[in-house]
Amino acid sequence: MEKLYGNAVVGQSGGPTAAINATLSGVIRGALSGVEKGIIGKVYGMRNGIEGLTEERLVDLGKIFTSEQHFTDLEHTPAAALGSCRKKLPNPKENPVAFEYIVDIFKKYDIRYFFYIGGNDSMDTVMKLSEYVASIDYEMRIIGVPKTIDNDLTGTDHTPGFGSAAKYIATSVKEIICDCAVYTTKAVTITEIMGRDAGWLTASAGLTRLSGGVGPDYIYLPERDFDMNSFFSDIRTALKAHPNVVIAVSEGIRFADGKYVSENGKVDAFGHKQLSGTGTVLAEALREEVGCKTRAVEFNTSQRCAAHIASKTDIKESVAIGKKAVEFALKGITGHVMIFVRSKVGYKITISSVPAESVANAVKKVPDEFIVPSGNNVTDKCLEYLRPLIEGEVKYRHEAGLPVHFKI
Amino acid sequence: MEKLYGNAVVGQSGGPTAAINATLSGVIRGALSGVEKGIIGKVYGMRNGIEGLTEERLVDLGKIFTSEQHFTDLEHTPAAALGSCRKKLPNPKENPVAFEYIVDIFKKYDIRYFFYIGGNDSMDTVMKLSEYVASIDYEMRIIGVPKTIDNDLTGTDHTPGFGSAAKYIATSVKEIICDCAVYTTKAVTITEIMGRDAGWLTASAGLTRLSGGVGPDYIYLPERDFDMNSFFSDIRTALKAHPNVVIAVSEGIRFADGKYVSENGKVDAFGHKQLSGTGTVLAEALREEVGCKTRAVEFNTSQRCAAHIASKTDIKESVAIGKKAVEFALKGITGHVMIFVRSKVGYKITISSVPAESVANAVKKVPDEFIVPSGNNVTDKCLEYLRPLIEGEVKYRHEAGLPVHFKI
Repeated sequence: MEKLYGNAVVGQSGGPTAAINATLSGVIRGALSGVEKGIIGKVYGMRNGIEGLTEERLVDLGKIFTSEQHFTDLEHTPAAALGSCRKKLPNPKENPVAFEYIVDIFKKYDIRYFFYIGGNDSMDTVMKLSEYVASIDYEMRIIGVPKTIDNDLTGTDHTPGFGSAAKYIATSVKEIICDCAVYTTKAVTITEIMGRDAGWLTASAGLTRLSGGVGPDYIYLPERDFDMNSFFSDIRTALKAHPNVVIAVSEGIRFADGKYVSENGKVDAFGHKQLSGTGTVLAEALREEVGCKTRAVEFNTSQRCAAHIASKTDIKESVAIGKKAVEFALKGITGHVMIFVRSKVGYKITISSVPAESVANAVKKVPDEFIVPSGNNVTDKCLEYLRPLIEGEVKYRHEAGLPVHFKI
Repeated sequence: MEKLYGNAVVGQSGGPTAAINATLSGVIRGALSGVEKGIIGKVYGMRNGIEGLTEERLVDLGKIFTSEQHFTDLEHTPAAALGSCRKKLPNPKENPVAFEYIVDIFKKYDIRYFFYIGGNDSMDTVMKLSEYVASIDYEMRIIGVPKTIDNDLTGTDHTPGFGSAAKYIATSVKEIICDCAVYTTKAVTITEIMGRDAGWLTASAGLTRLSGGVGPDYIYLPERDFDMNSFFSDIRTALKAHPNVVIAVSEGIRFADGKYVSENGKVDAFGHKQLSGTGTVLAEALREEVGCKTRAVEFNTSQRCAAHIASKTDIKESVAIGKKAVEFALKGITGHVMIFVRSKVGYKITISSVPAESVANAVKKVPDEFIVPSGNNVTDKCLEYLRPLIEGEVKYRHEAGLPVHFKI
C-alpha cells in the first residue's frame, strides 16, 4: 500500500472518563511519530468533537505537546481535554450535506487521518464518515478508538475508561461497607451506580469480595428484571445475618414490564431516558415495607472523572490503544474501531481492530454466566474477568495537595 | 505526681472519618508503650463506644496488635475499627445511675485510663465522666481525642479527620470542574457538601483555586443567610462569563428566617434536623428561574470514609494526637481534650490539651475574615489556613487493586 501523506485530526466525543485523555495522549504520541517519519504534516485537535470541527475550531497539538511531562500530565487528567460533544451524524445516504461540509474542511486543512475517541454513538460517526468518504473516493484513514466507563461496547474485551471507573466504584463501596459497619442499629445502604442498559459498573462493586472477603450483600443489574417482593425478601434475609446491609443497584434496573424503577420522564440529546434516584426509590420502599433505617448513596459524576483513583492497567492500555490506532491508520486501515483482545489464559492484552459497523449502536450486556441464578449477585467468574482491569495505582503530580491537571 | 497503675480502655464514638482509626492506632501505640513501662496492665478496646463498654464488650488490643503492619494498615482504614455509637450520657447530678454502672465496670476491669475518640458529643461524655469520677474520688485519667470531618470543634486549630475529608472534597470538585468543562451547552453543577452548622468542608472546595487556578464559581456556607434572588443573580453573572458553572453549597444553608433550604422534617438521635437534597432543591429552582441545564452532585458518605485519598498530614497528626493523649494521661492530666496548636508563622503543629468543658457542645464556625463580603465565596486567607491540612498523599497496601483495610 502506498503511503498517504497529509495532516491528522483527533477528537473526543460523548461522556468524559478518567482515561479518555490517556487515549488522546496515545493518539498524539503516535501521530507525532508519524510527523517524525514525514508521513503526517500537522496534528490537529478538534475542539468539542465534530461540533468544533465543523466550526473549524482546530488546535495545533504539535505546538502544545513539547515535553514528556505534558503527555504524562494529560494521561492523569480526567474528562476530555479537547472538549466533547453529543452530536450524532445523520444517515449519509439520506442527508449528505453535513458530510460534504465536513469533507470540505478535511480538504481545506489537508486532513487525511481522522481519529475519534468515543463511545457507542461516536463509533456510529466513524462508520458513517468512513462510508461517506469511500463513496466519494476521498482517500482517508478514519479510525475510532473506544472509550466508555460503561464497558458496553461489543467486539472488545473491555473498553478504555471502564477499569478506572470500576476501581473508583469498588474502592468507594469497600469504604462505605467499612463506614456502615460501625453502628449496631439495623440499616440498609443502597449504592446507586451508573449504567443504563449494561450492569458492568454495578457488577464491579462485587470486586470488594476479592479484597477482605466482604462484598455488597446483593448486586442488582439491569440484565435481570427487578422484582420488589424478591428484593424485600433478600433484604429481610440479609438483616437476619448482620445489622448493616449494603447493596449495589444499577440506575437502569427495570421491572418485568420494562418500566424503570425510577423514571423521571426526561430524555437526553440521544433520546435516552434520563434516570436518577433509583436508590432513593428503593430506600423509601424499604423504609415503608421493612421498617429499617435506609440510606441511598449515588456515586454520580465522580464515577466517570475520579482520575485520582484511576486504574494503572486502564491508563496504560488507554495510551497504548491510542498509539496503536495511529499505527493501524498509517498501515492503511480505515473504517475500523480499535479493540482489546484478552489472552485465553492469564491476562495479556493485544490490540487489534474490527470494522466500525460491527461495533456501532450495539450494546454488550453482562453475560448470564456472570450473574448468579437468583439474579441478585455476580459470580466468581465475573470477578475473575473484572479483577485485572482495576489492578495498579497511577502516580500523578500534585500541587497544593491536589492532582495536577493538563489544560489544552 | 504518683504513678497510677491500672488498665486502659479506648473507644470511638460519633460519625466515622478517614482518620479516626489513625488516632486509635496512636492511642494503642501509646498505651502499649505504657504497658512496656509497667504502668498500664492491659489495653482494652470498647466495642461501639460506651454502648459496648456498658455491655462489657471489651477486646484485648495488646493481643491483636502484634506487628507494625497491623498499626499501619489500621491507620489507612476508614470508619471506626472498634465500632461506634451515638449515645449521649445524662447529667450526672440529675441521673447518676448510668455513671455508677460505668464505674462498676471500670472497677471490675481495673480501668484507670479512659480514652475517647469522638466529636462534639463525645467530648461531652469525657466532661461528664471525668466530673463524675472526681465527685466519687475514683482516681482515673480520662482524655478526649477529637475527631470530626466537620472541623467545628473549638479550642483546636483543626480536627483530626477534617484534612482528609477536605482533600477528598477538593479533589472531587477539581475533577468535576474538569468534567463539566467538556460541553459548550450552558449548565450549572451544584456540589452539595456535608456540614450542618459550620461551612469548613464546603469552604475546602475553594482549595481547587490553588491548584490550576480554577475554583467553584461560588461557595455558599451556612455561616451566611442564603438568599434565593442573590443566588439567581450570581448564577446569571457566572453564565455570562462561561458556559459551565460549578458551585459548592453546604447541606446546612438556611434562609434569613432560619429555615433550611432543604428540610425533610426528620431528626437524628441527638435531635439534630436531618438534611438532604439542598443541591436538588437549588437545581430545580434554577431550572425554573434561569432555564439552564442543572445537575446536583451530593458527595454523601464518601466524604467521611474516602481513606484512599486521605491527607498524609491528617493521618500523621491523627496518630500523633492519639499517642500524645496517652503521654498526657500518664503525666496525670484528666478531664481534658487534646488539641492542635498552629505556629504563628508557617505551618508547625504542637499538641496540647484543654479542659473538656471548654470544648464540649460548642461549635466553631468559619470566621468572617474567611468569607468574602458578598458572602458567596471564601477568601485567600481561608485557603491559606486550609492548604497545609490537605498536603501529602498516603501510601497504603493493595489487594486485588483495592485498599487493604484492617479489621479488629
